[in-house]
Amino acid sequence: MNEQKPKAVILLSGGLDSATILAIAKTSGFDCYPLTFDYGQRHRIELKAATAVAAHLQAHPVKQITLDLRAFGGSALTDDIDVPKDRTELTNENDIPVTYVPARNTILLSFALGYAEVIGATAIFIGANAVDYSGYPDCRPEFITAFEQLANLATAAGVSGEKLAIHAPLIDLTKAEIIQKGSALGVDYGLTHSCYDPVDDKACGACDSCLLRRKGFDAAGVPDPTVYVDV
Amino acid sequence: MNEQKPKAVILLSGGLDSATILAIAKTSGFDCYPLTFDYGQRHRIELKAATAVAAHLQAHPVKQITLDLRAFGGSALTDDIDVPKDRTELTNENDIPVTYVPARNTILLSFALGYAEVIGATAIFIGANAVDYSGYPDCRPEFITAFEQLANLATAAGVSGEKLAIHAPLIDLTKAEIIQKGSALGVDYGLTHSCYDPVDDKACGACDSCLLRRKGFDAAGVPDPTVYVDV
Repeated sequence: MNEQKPKAVILLSGGLDSATILAIAKTSGFDCYPLTFDYGQRHRIELKAATAVAAHLQAHPVKQITLDLRAFGGSALTDDIDVPKDRTELTNENDIPVTYVPARNTILLSFALGYAEVIGATAIFIGANAVDYSGYPDCRPEFITAFEQLANLATAAGVSGEKLAIHAPLIDLTKAEIIQKGSALGVDYGLTHSCYDPVDDKACGACDSCLLRRKGFDAAGVPDPTVYVDV
Repeated sequence: MNEQKPKAVILLSGGLDSATILAIAKTSGFDCYPLTFDYGQRHRIELKAATAVAAHLQAHPVKQITLDLRAFGGSALTDDIDVPKDRTELTNENDIPVTYVPARNTILLSFALGYAEVIGATAIFIGANAVDYSGYPDCRPEFITAFEQLANLATAAGVSGEKLAIHAPLIDLTKAEIIQKGSALGVDYGLTHSCYDPVDDKACGACDSCLLRRKGFDAAGVPDPTVYVDV
Protein backbone atom coordinates (compact mmCIF):
# COMPACT_ATOMS: atom_id res chain seq x y z
CA MET A 1 0.00 0.00 0.00
CA ASN A 2 2.61 2.52 1.12
CA GLU A 3 4.53 2.18 -2.12
CA GLN A 4 1.64 3.69 -4.05
CA LYS A 5 1.31 6.75 -1.82
CA PRO A 6 3.18 9.92 -2.73
CA LYS A 7 6.04 10.63 -0.31
CA ALA A 8 6.28 13.77 1.83
CA VAL A 9 9.06 15.14 4.02
CA ILE A 10 7.64 16.52 7.28
CA LEU A 11 9.60 19.13 9.25
CA LEU A 12 8.91 17.73 12.70
CA SER A 13 10.22 19.60 15.74
CA GLY A 14 8.19 17.68 18.28
CA GLY A 15 6.14 20.77 19.01
CA LEU A 16 2.40 21.18 18.80
CA ASP A 17 2.34 22.71 15.31
CA SER A 18 4.57 20.15 13.61
CA ALA A 19 2.68 17.23 15.19
CA THR A 20 -0.45 18.70 13.63
CA ILE A 21 1.06 18.95 10.15
CA LEU A 22 2.22 15.34 10.35
CA ALA A 23 -1.38 14.31 11.11
CA ILE A 24 -2.63 16.49 8.23
CA ALA A 25 -0.09 15.00 5.80
CA LYS A 26 -1.00 11.47 6.86
CA THR A 27 -4.73 12.19 6.49
CA SER A 28 -4.05 13.72 3.05
CA GLY A 29 -2.68 10.38 1.89
CA PHE A 30 1.06 10.96 2.06
CA ASP A 31 3.70 8.41 3.06
CA CYS A 32 5.44 10.54 5.73
CA TYR A 33 9.19 10.92 6.29
CA PRO A 34 9.82 13.16 9.35
CA LEU A 35 12.98 15.27 9.44
CA THR A 36 14.16 16.90 12.65
CA PHE A 37 17.15 19.05 13.63
CA ASP A 38 19.46 19.26 16.58
CA TYR A 39 20.62 22.82 16.09
CA GLY A 40 22.10 23.54 19.48
CA GLN A 41 18.86 24.97 20.78
CA ARG A 42 18.06 24.75 24.47
CA HIS A 43 14.96 22.64 23.98
CA ARG A 44 16.65 19.32 23.09
CA ILE A 45 13.74 17.64 24.78
CA GLU A 46 11.84 18.45 21.57
CA LEU A 47 13.95 15.92 19.73
CA LYS A 48 12.65 13.16 21.98
CA ALA A 49 9.13 14.43 21.46
CA ALA A 50 9.55 14.26 17.67
CA THR A 51 10.41 10.56 17.91
CA ALA A 52 7.36 9.87 20.08
CA VAL A 53 5.05 11.84 17.78
CA ALA A 54 6.33 10.04 14.66
CA ALA A 55 5.72 6.65 16.28
CA HIS A 56 2.27 7.70 17.49
CA LEU A 57 1.24 8.81 14.00
CA GLN A 58 2.83 5.77 12.29
CA ALA A 59 5.28 7.74 10.18
CA HIS A 60 8.70 6.51 9.06
CA PRO A 61 11.47 6.80 11.68
CA VAL A 62 12.67 10.37 12.25
CA LYS A 63 15.77 11.40 10.29
CA GLN A 64 17.88 13.79 12.37
CA ILE A 65 20.29 16.42 11.05
CA THR A 66 22.80 17.99 13.43
CA LEU A 67 23.42 21.69 12.81
CA ASP A 68 25.31 24.30 14.74
CA LEU A 69 23.49 27.57 14.21
CA ARG A 70 25.38 28.98 17.23
CA ALA A 71 28.32 29.45 14.86
CA PHE A 72 26.53 32.62 13.72
CA GLY A 73 25.20 33.98 16.98
CA GLY A 74 22.22 36.28 16.78
CA SER A 75 19.33 34.55 18.60
CA ALA A 76 18.08 33.95 22.13
CA LEU A 77 17.28 30.35 21.18
CA THR A 78 20.86 29.46 20.33
CA ASP A 79 22.95 32.05 22.21
CA ASP A 80 23.57 32.24 25.92
CA ILE A 81 21.19 35.12 26.53
CA ASP A 82 17.98 34.98 28.51
CA VAL A 83 14.80 33.84 26.84
CA PRO A 84 12.28 36.64 27.34
CA LYS A 85 9.42 35.84 29.72
CA ASP A 86 7.17 38.71 28.76
CA ARG A 87 5.71 39.16 25.30
CA THR A 88 6.34 42.91 25.47
CA GLU A 89 10.11 42.27 25.65
CA LEU A 90 10.02 39.98 22.65
CA THR A 91 10.66 42.45 19.88
CA ASN A 92 13.51 44.75 19.00
CA GLU A 93 13.18 48.11 17.28
CA ASN A 94 12.36 46.48 13.92
CA ASP A 95 9.68 44.27 15.48
CA ILE A 96 11.75 41.15 14.87
CA PRO A 97 11.44 38.88 17.93
CA VAL A 98 14.79 38.28 19.65
CA THR A 99 13.93 34.57 19.58
CA TYR A 100 14.13 34.73 15.76
CA VAL A 101 16.93 32.49 14.40
CA PRO A 102 18.58 33.99 11.29
CA ALA A 103 17.42 32.27 8.09
CA ARG A 104 16.06 29.38 10.16
CA ASN A 105 13.17 28.27 7.93
CA THR A 106 15.28 28.77 4.80
CA ILE A 107 17.94 26.46 6.22
CA LEU A 108 15.45 23.84 7.45
CA LEU A 109 13.53 23.82 4.14
CA SER A 110 16.82 23.49 2.24
CA PHE A 111 17.66 20.29 4.08
CA ALA A 112 14.09 19.07 3.59
CA LEU A 113 14.57 19.72 -0.13
CA GLY A 114 17.75 17.63 -0.19
CA TYR A 115 16.01 14.79 1.65
CA ALA A 116 12.97 15.06 -0.64
CA GLU A 117 15.20 14.73 -3.66
CA VAL A 118 17.00 11.65 -2.32
CA ILE A 119 13.81 9.73 -1.39
CA GLY A 120 11.76 11.02 -4.34
CA ALA A 121 9.22 12.98 -2.29
CA THR A 122 6.86 15.35 -4.09
CA ALA A 123 5.86 17.37 -1.03
CA ILE A 124 7.37 19.07 2.02
CA PHE A 125 5.22 20.00 5.01
CA ILE A 126 6.25 22.86 7.32
CA GLY A 127 4.39 24.18 10.38
CA ALA A 128 5.09 27.85 9.61
CA ASN A 129 2.45 30.15 11.05
CA ALA A 130 1.96 33.82 10.22
CA VAL A 131 -0.59 34.48 12.98
CA ASP A 132 1.32 33.84 16.20
CA TYR A 133 4.70 34.51 14.57
CA SER A 134 3.85 37.65 12.67
CA GLY A 135 7.27 39.17 13.42
CA TYR A 136 9.16 36.33 11.71
CA PRO A 137 9.84 37.17 8.04
CA ASP A 138 10.27 33.49 7.13
CA CYS A 139 6.78 32.57 8.40
CA ARG A 140 4.97 34.66 5.77
CA PRO A 141 2.97 33.04 2.93
CA GLU A 142 5.06 34.87 0.30
CA PHE A 143 8.20 33.26 1.76
CA ILE A 144 6.67 29.79 1.36
CA THR A 145 5.68 30.56 -2.25
CA ALA A 146 9.18 31.84 -3.05
CA PHE A 147 10.75 28.72 -1.58
CA GLU A 148 8.48 26.49 -3.66
CA GLN A 149 9.59 28.34 -6.81
CA LEU A 150 13.23 28.00 -5.78
CA ALA A 151 12.81 24.29 -4.97
CA ASN A 152 11.53 23.54 -8.44
CA LEU A 153 14.57 25.23 -10.00
CA ALA A 154 17.10 23.85 -7.52
CA THR A 155 16.78 20.14 -7.86
CA ALA A 156 17.14 17.26 -10.22
CA ALA A 157 13.41 16.61 -9.77
CA GLY A 158 12.79 20.13 -11.05
CA VAL A 159 14.85 19.36 -14.14
CA SER A 160 13.05 16.11 -14.90
CA GLY A 161 9.67 17.80 -14.71
CA GLU A 162 8.25 16.51 -11.43
CA LYS A 163 6.84 19.34 -9.33
CA LEU A 164 7.57 19.63 -5.64
CA ALA A 165 4.99 21.35 -3.43
CA ILE A 166 5.66 23.13 -0.14
CA HIS A 167 2.66 22.76 2.17
CA ALA A 168 2.22 25.15 5.11
CA PRO A 169 -1.31 24.16 6.17
CA LEU A 170 -1.21 26.10 9.46
CA ILE A 171 -0.03 29.39 8.01
CA ASP A 172 -3.23 31.36 8.61
CA LEU A 173 -4.65 29.44 11.60
CA THR A 174 -4.79 30.61 15.20
CA LYS A 175 -3.28 28.35 17.85
CA ALA A 176 -6.81 27.39 18.94
CA GLU A 177 -7.73 26.40 15.36
CA ILE A 178 -4.54 24.34 15.08
CA ILE A 179 -5.35 22.50 18.30
CA GLN A 180 -8.95 21.86 17.21
CA LYS A 181 -7.79 20.52 13.84
CA GLY A 182 -5.13 18.27 15.38
CA SER A 183 -7.47 16.99 18.07
CA ALA A 184 -10.01 16.05 15.40
CA LEU A 185 -7.27 14.08 13.61
CA GLY A 186 -6.32 12.21 16.80
CA VAL A 187 -3.06 13.97 17.71
CA ASP A 188 -1.95 13.22 21.28
CA TYR A 189 -0.65 16.67 22.29
CA GLY A 190 0.63 15.19 25.54
CA LEU A 191 3.54 13.83 23.48
CA THR A 192 4.47 17.26 22.13
CA HIS A 193 6.68 19.92 23.63
CA SER A 194 6.72 23.66 22.99
CA CYS A 195 8.61 25.33 25.88
CA TYR A 196 11.66 27.47 25.11
CA ASP A 197 13.02 27.10 28.64
CA PRO A 198 12.05 23.74 30.20
CA VAL A 199 12.96 22.80 33.79
CA ASP A 200 13.48 19.08 34.50
CA ASP A 201 11.55 18.13 31.32
CA LYS A 202 8.60 20.24 32.45
CA ALA A 203 7.34 23.28 30.55
CA CYS A 204 8.10 26.62 32.24
CA GLY A 205 4.59 27.94 31.60
CA ALA A 206 5.87 31.50 31.26
CA CYS A 207 7.86 31.78 28.02
CA ASP A 208 6.28 33.10 24.85
CA SER A 209 5.78 29.60 23.46
CA CYS A 210 4.15 28.30 26.69
CA LEU A 211 1.85 31.34 26.86
CA LEU A 212 0.70 30.84 23.27
CA ARG A 213 0.13 27.15 23.92
CA ARG A 214 -1.85 27.70 27.12
CA LYS A 215 -4.04 30.36 25.56
CA GLY A 216 -4.55 28.10 22.55
CA PHE A 217 -5.91 25.17 24.54
CA ASP A 218 -8.07 27.53 26.55
CA ALA A 219 -9.53 29.17 23.43
CA ALA A 220 -9.96 25.82 21.68
CA GLY A 221 -11.91 24.39 24.61
CA VAL A 222 -9.57 21.40 24.66
CA PRO A 223 -7.97 20.18 27.93
CA ASP A 224 -4.24 21.09 28.01
CA PRO A 225 -2.22 17.89 28.64
CA THR A 226 1.03 19.83 29.22
CA VAL A 227 2.87 19.41 32.54
CA TYR A 228 3.94 22.88 33.71
CA VAL A 229 6.38 23.58 36.55
CA ASP A 230 4.06 26.19 38.06
CA VAL A 231 0.96 24.01 38.25
CA MET B 1 38.35 52.21 6.27
CA ASN B 2 36.81 48.75 6.44
CA GLU B 3 33.89 50.02 8.45
CA GLN B 4 32.71 52.06 5.48
CA LYS B 5 32.84 49.18 3.01
CA PRO B 6 29.71 47.11 2.41
CA LYS B 7 30.05 43.59 3.83
CA ALA B 8 29.84 40.45 1.72
CA VAL B 9 29.67 36.76 2.67
CA ILE B 10 31.88 34.68 0.35
CA LEU B 11 31.17 30.96 -0.11
CA LEU B 12 34.79 29.78 -0.07
CA SER B 13 35.54 26.11 -0.65
CA GLY B 14 39.27 26.56 -1.17
CA GLY B 15 38.87 25.60 -4.81
CA LEU B 16 39.88 27.57 -7.87
CA ASP B 17 36.46 29.10 -8.54
CA SER B 18 35.76 30.31 -5.01
CA ALA B 19 39.26 31.84 -4.66
CA THR B 20 38.46 33.81 -7.81
CA ILE B 21 35.15 35.14 -6.47
CA LEU B 22 36.86 36.25 -3.26
CA ALA B 23 39.34 38.25 -5.35
CA ILE B 24 36.47 39.70 -7.41
CA ALA B 25 34.50 40.67 -4.28
CA LYS B 26 37.58 42.32 -2.76
CA THR B 27 38.31 44.23 -5.98
CA SER B 28 34.65 45.30 -6.11
CA GLY B 29 35.10 47.06 -2.76
CA PHE B 30 33.50 44.59 -0.36
CA ASP B 31 34.64 43.81 3.17
CA CYS B 32 34.83 40.02 2.78
CA TYR B 33 33.64 37.37 5.29
CA PRO B 34 34.45 33.87 3.97
CA LEU B 35 32.16 30.97 4.94
CA THR B 36 33.23 27.37 4.41
CA PHE B 37 31.67 23.98 5.12
CA ASP B 38 32.88 20.66 6.38
CA TYR B 39 30.14 18.49 4.95
CA GLY B 40 31.71 15.09 5.19
CA GLN B 41 33.12 15.24 1.70
CA ARG B 42 36.33 13.43 0.87
CA HIS B 43 38.28 16.55 -0.01
CA ARG B 44 38.78 17.91 3.51
CA ILE B 45 42.07 19.28 2.29
CA GLU B 46 39.94 21.99 0.67
CA LEU B 47 39.16 23.36 4.11
CA LYS B 48 42.85 24.01 4.72
CA ALA B 49 43.08 25.63 1.30
CA ALA B 50 40.17 27.97 2.15
CA THR B 51 42.05 29.26 5.19
CA ALA B 52 45.21 29.87 3.13
CA VAL B 53 43.27 31.62 0.37
CA ALA B 54 41.45 33.91 2.84
CA ALA B 55 44.74 34.95 4.44
CA HIS B 56 46.36 35.48 1.03
CA LEU B 57 43.53 37.77 -0.09
CA GLN B 58 43.33 39.59 3.26
CA ALA B 59 39.74 38.62 4.03
CA HIS B 60 38.31 38.12 7.51
CA PRO B 61 39.06 34.72 9.11
CA VAL B 62 37.08 31.84 7.62
CA LYS B 63 33.90 30.90 9.46
CA GLN B 64 33.33 27.14 9.26
CA ILE B 65 30.01 25.31 9.47
CA THR B 66 29.98 21.56 10.05
CA LEU B 67 27.26 19.71 8.15
CA ASP B 68 26.57 16.06 7.64
CA LEU B 69 25.03 15.69 4.21
CA ARG B 70 25.80 11.96 4.36
CA ALA B 71 22.69 11.67 6.50
CA PHE B 72 20.75 11.75 3.21
CA GLY B 73 22.93 9.64 0.97
CA GLY B 74 22.62 10.23 -2.74
CA SER B 75 26.01 11.49 -3.97
CA ALA B 76 29.45 10.17 -4.91
CA LEU B 77 31.02 13.09 -3.04
CA THR B 78 29.54 12.15 0.31
CA ASP B 79 28.72 8.44 -0.03
CA ASP B 80 31.14 5.56 -0.09
CA ILE B 81 30.88 4.96 -3.81
CA ASP B 82 33.65 5.48 -6.33
CA VAL B 83 34.25 8.92 -7.78
CA PRO B 84 34.05 8.50 -11.55
CA LYS B 85 37.32 8.92 -13.40
CA ASP B 86 35.86 9.31 -16.85
CA ARG B 87 33.55 12.15 -17.87
CA THR B 88 31.40 9.75 -19.91
CA GLU B 89 30.46 7.92 -16.69
CA LEU B 90 29.48 11.13 -14.93
CA THR B 91 25.81 11.31 -15.76
CA ASN B 92 22.84 9.13 -14.98
CA GLU B 93 19.82 8.69 -17.22
CA ASN B 94 18.53 12.22 -16.43
CA ASP B 95 21.92 13.80 -17.22
CA ILE B 96 22.46 14.70 -13.56
CA PRO B 97 26.11 14.02 -12.66
CA VAL B 98 26.47 11.36 -9.95
CA THR B 99 28.79 13.81 -8.14
CA TYR B 100 25.77 16.12 -7.66
CA VAL B 101 24.94 16.66 -3.95
CA PRO B 102 21.17 17.01 -3.36
CA ALA B 103 20.17 20.63 -2.75
CA ARG B 104 23.82 21.52 -2.09
CA ASN B 105 23.83 25.13 -3.29
CA THR B 106 20.43 25.78 -1.70
CA ILE B 107 21.77 24.59 1.65
CA LEU B 108 25.06 26.49 1.38
CA LEU B 109 23.32 29.73 0.32
CA SER B 110 20.83 29.34 3.18
CA PHE B 111 23.66 29.34 5.71
CA ALA B 112 25.31 32.25 3.90
CA LEU B 113 21.98 34.07 4.22
CA GLY B 114 21.90 33.48 7.98
CA TYR B 115 25.49 34.69 8.34
CA ALA B 116 24.78 37.72 6.14
CA GLU B 117 21.86 38.64 8.35
CA VAL B 118 23.90 38.36 11.56
CA ILE B 119 26.83 40.49 10.33
CA GLY B 120 24.69 42.90 8.29
CA ALA B 121 26.09 41.93 4.88
CA THR B 122 24.32 43.18 1.75
CA ALA B 123 25.87 40.68 -0.64
CA ILE B 124 26.64 36.97 -0.96
CA PHE B 125 29.18 35.70 -3.52
CA ILE B 126 28.95 32.14 -4.86
CA GLY B 127 31.19 30.47 -7.44
CA ALA B 128 28.35 28.70 -9.25
CA ASN B 129 29.15 28.00 -12.89
CA ALA B 130 26.71 26.93 -15.57
CA VAL B 131 29.33 26.16 -18.21
CA ASP B 132 31.38 23.32 -16.71
CA TYR B 133 28.53 22.20 -14.43
CA SER B 134 25.70 22.29 -16.93
CA GLY B 135 24.15 19.14 -15.45
CA TYR B 136 23.74 20.67 -11.98
CA PRO B 137 20.29 22.29 -11.63
CA ASP B 138 21.47 24.55 -8.79
CA CYS B 139 24.23 26.10 -10.92
CA ARG B 140 21.79 27.74 -13.37
CA PRO B 141 21.31 31.54 -13.51
CA GLU B 142 17.56 31.18 -12.86
CA PHE B 143 18.33 29.34 -9.61
CA ILE B 144 20.54 32.23 -8.43
CA THR B 145 17.79 34.74 -9.30
CA ALA B 146 15.17 32.68 -7.44
CA PHE B 147 17.39 32.47 -4.37
CA GLU B 148 17.91 36.24 -4.38
CA GLN B 149 14.13 36.73 -4.43
CA LEU B 150 13.73 34.25 -1.59
CA ALA B 151 16.52 35.87 0.43
CA ASN B 152 14.82 39.23 0.34
CA LEU B 153 11.59 37.72 1.66
CA ALA B 154 13.25 35.41 4.19
CA THR B 155 15.16 37.73 6.44
CA ALA B 156 14.82 40.58 8.86
CA ALA B 157 16.94 42.66 6.47
CA GLY B 158 14.30 42.03 3.82
CA VAL B 159 11.62 43.31 6.18
CA SER B 160 13.51 46.47 7.06
CA GLY B 161 13.98 47.34 3.39
CA GLU B 162 17.67 46.62 2.84
CA LYS B 163 18.20 44.55 -0.29
CA LEU B 164 20.55 41.59 -0.35
CA ALA B 165 22.22 40.67 -3.65
CA ILE B 166 23.44 37.21 -4.67
CA HIS B 167 26.50 37.54 -6.92
CA ALA B 168 27.55 34.63 -9.13
CA PRO B 169 30.21 36.37 -11.23
CA LEU B 170 31.56 33.14 -12.79
CA ILE B 171 28.24 31.76 -13.90
CA ASP B 172 28.81 32.09 -17.66
CA LEU B 173 32.61 31.90 -17.79
CA THR B 174 34.71 29.00 -19.04
CA LYS B 175 37.36 27.60 -16.72
CA ALA B 176 40.03 29.32 -18.84
CA GLU B 177 38.26 32.68 -18.50
CA ILE B 178 37.97 32.19 -14.72
CA ILE B 179 41.71 31.46 -14.46
CA GLN B 180 42.59 34.48 -16.62
CA LYS B 181 40.38 36.76 -14.52
CA GLY B 182 41.76 35.47 -11.22
CA SER B 183 45.35 35.64 -12.41
CA ALA B 184 44.84 39.26 -13.42
CA LEU B 185 43.54 39.95 -9.89
CA GLY B 186 46.59 38.32 -8.29
CA VAL B 187 45.07 35.03 -7.10
CA ASP B 188 47.73 32.46 -6.15
CA TYR B 189 46.11 29.30 -7.54
CA GLY B 190 48.88 27.24 -5.97
CA LEU B 191 46.99 27.68 -2.68
CA THR B 192 43.74 26.29 -4.11
CA HIS B 193 42.58 22.70 -4.36
CA SER B 194 40.01 21.17 -6.72
CA CYS B 195 40.55 17.37 -6.71
CA TYR B 196 37.64 15.09 -5.75
CA ASP B 197 39.99 12.22 -4.89
CA PRO B 198 43.37 13.47 -3.58
CA VAL B 199 46.22 11.09 -2.65
CA ASP B 200 48.60 12.27 0.11
CA ASP B 201 47.47 15.90 -0.36
CA LYS B 202 48.24 15.69 -4.08
CA ALA B 203 45.61 16.04 -6.82
CA CYS B 204 44.76 12.79 -8.62
CA GLY B 205 44.89 14.45 -12.03
CA ALA B 206 42.19 12.13 -13.38
CA CYS B 207 38.88 13.02 -11.72
CA ASP B 208 36.39 15.28 -13.44
CA SER B 209 37.46 18.28 -11.37
CA CYS B 210 41.18 17.74 -12.09
CA LEU B 211 40.52 17.31 -15.81
CA LEU B 212 38.54 20.57 -15.94
CA ARG B 213 41.28 22.36 -14.02
CA ARG B 214 44.14 21.05 -16.21
CA LYS B 215 42.32 21.91 -19.43
CA GLY B 216 41.49 25.34 -18.01
CA PHE B 217 45.09 26.29 -17.31
CA ASP B 218 46.11 24.95 -20.69
CA ALA B 219 43.44 26.93 -22.54
CA ALA B 220 44.13 30.06 -20.46
CA GLY B 221 47.84 29.95 -21.30
CA VAL B 222 48.63 30.17 -17.58
CA PRO B 223 51.15 27.78 -15.93
CA ASP B 224 49.30 25.21 -13.75
CA PRO B 225 50.78 25.34 -10.21
CA THR B 226 48.91 22.18 -9.12
CA VAL B 227 50.93 19.21 -7.82
CA TYR B 228 49.48 16.06 -9.42
CA VAL B 229 50.32 12.48 -8.37
CA ASP B 230 50.88 11.41 -11.98
CA VAL B 231 53.38 14.13 -12.88
